[in-house]
Amino acid sequence: MRERDAAKPRRDQIPEIVINRLPIYARTLAYLEEEHVEVVSSLELGARLRVTPAQIRKDLSYFGEFGKQGTGYNVKYLLGEIRQILGLDREWRMALVGVGHLGRAILAYRGFIDQGFRVVAAFDNDTARIGSHIQGISVRDVAELPQVIAREGIQIAILAVPASEAQAQADTLVKCGVKAILNYAPVNLHVPPEVKVRHVDPVVALQAMTYHLKSLPREVGLEAGSG
Amino acid sequence: MRERDAAKPRRDQIPEIVINRLPIYARTLAYLEEEHVEVVSSLELGARLRVTPAQIRKDLSYFGEFGKQGTGYNVKYLLGEIRQILGLDREWRMALVGVGHLGRAILAYRGFIDQGFRVVAAFDNDTARIGSHIQGISVRDVAELPQVIAREGIQIAILAVPASEAQAQADTLVKCGVKAILNYAPVNLHVPPEVKVRHVDPVVALQAMTYHLKSLPREVGLEAGSG
Repeated sequence: MRERDAAKPRRDQIPEIVINRLPIYARTLAYLEEEHVEVVSSLELGARLRVTPAQIRKDLSYFGEFGKQGTGYNVKYLLGEIRQILGLDREWRMALVGVGHLGRAILAYRGFIDQGFRVVAAFDNDTARIGSHIQGISVRDVAELPQVIAREGIQIAILAVPASEAQAQADTLVKCGVKAILNYAPVNLHVPPEVKVRHVDPVVALQAMTYHLKSLPREVGLEAGSG
Repeated sequence: MRERDAAKPRRDQIPEIVINRLPIYARTLAYLEEEHVEVVSSLELGARLRVTPAQIRKDLSYFGEFGKQGTGYNVKYLLGEIRQILGLDREWRMALVGVGHLGRAILAYRGFIDQGFRVVAAFDNDTARIGSHIQGISVRDVAELPQVIAREGIQIAILAVPASEAQAQADTLVKCGVKAILNYAPVNLHVPPEVKVRHVDPVVALQAMTYHLKSLPREVGLEAGSG
């Protein structure tokens, strides 16, 4: 389809860490597009992302040639290419397991559907919740998971259950053929290697910030010599 | 206090990406501790984290000497050291701005307080929400932000407002002296360089997984030649 296709490395030769950076590139390019920026240099993009221009060029080189030396990247084109690489040029249907506070917030969250991720089925094991409707989606018994996942062709699940239930529900999802789990439960899930798991953990983001806070003058008196 | 203190690099010489990995190391070490693992090699730790053992050794070398070649790391000791480096050996008090669905889920979320991050004040600009009590916390008018932040000595805020309001609320937080913002709104915030911002964006996690899903056989028919 394109020249670069012939030379690009095999899918399994691309480091996971590079794949993980692509959505961040896409997000930043989308912001630039909203700001009506047409062309961006790897220097400017790097400054926004706080990575080196060399890193950006190296990451993108796994997938092809997206800009000419010295002219920068066409924002719209590069965003389109990255979205295609990541499989974002289509809608993904998801199942949600667990509709407590967090599950409800997930159902109300506009960010998923805006980016092409649609929750089409929600499950819980609490009879008080089963049968209720949240954001236009009816909550089903987790016992119905296998049939619904198969019928709807769902490959992605969001796990928003308590930590104690997470592994059991993950096992069920894997048995049903789910290939990707977005895990909000604070546990490490054990899944077969072909199943992808990403952990949503806002605490990790906080913890990287406190490193910087602890060196601020007002905290000095509270510390025990580690600063 | 310890030998390694004398030789370690200045705080501002440590790359941000290394700081960002420390909480992930801490999380994994905490899981190992729960599993009663006493000693872990950089090889085993690397396998859990999907990074190379060399990367782990290099990252930790910024902060000191935590294990002897060939004997592995003492899990409890290394976890304690990393927690101290990150400033996690104390409680952090936080303000929450925005108590819609997401804000309510954040107030109900146990993961923050379990890790020493306590929301002590919540704010909204919706009169229907102001004065209500959620999870034992009274919701205040955002107009009270300056006084409460100052009185409670809050340095960290969680922003859970709609995208359109996020920058204005971030500006207010910065003016009040907040030094770290955990941003749930889907916008890039502009803040002074001394203020840290982390973006919580579960979509980014999904997008890195769809890269792998799109290569699965069942998706081939839906694709347009990018796989």
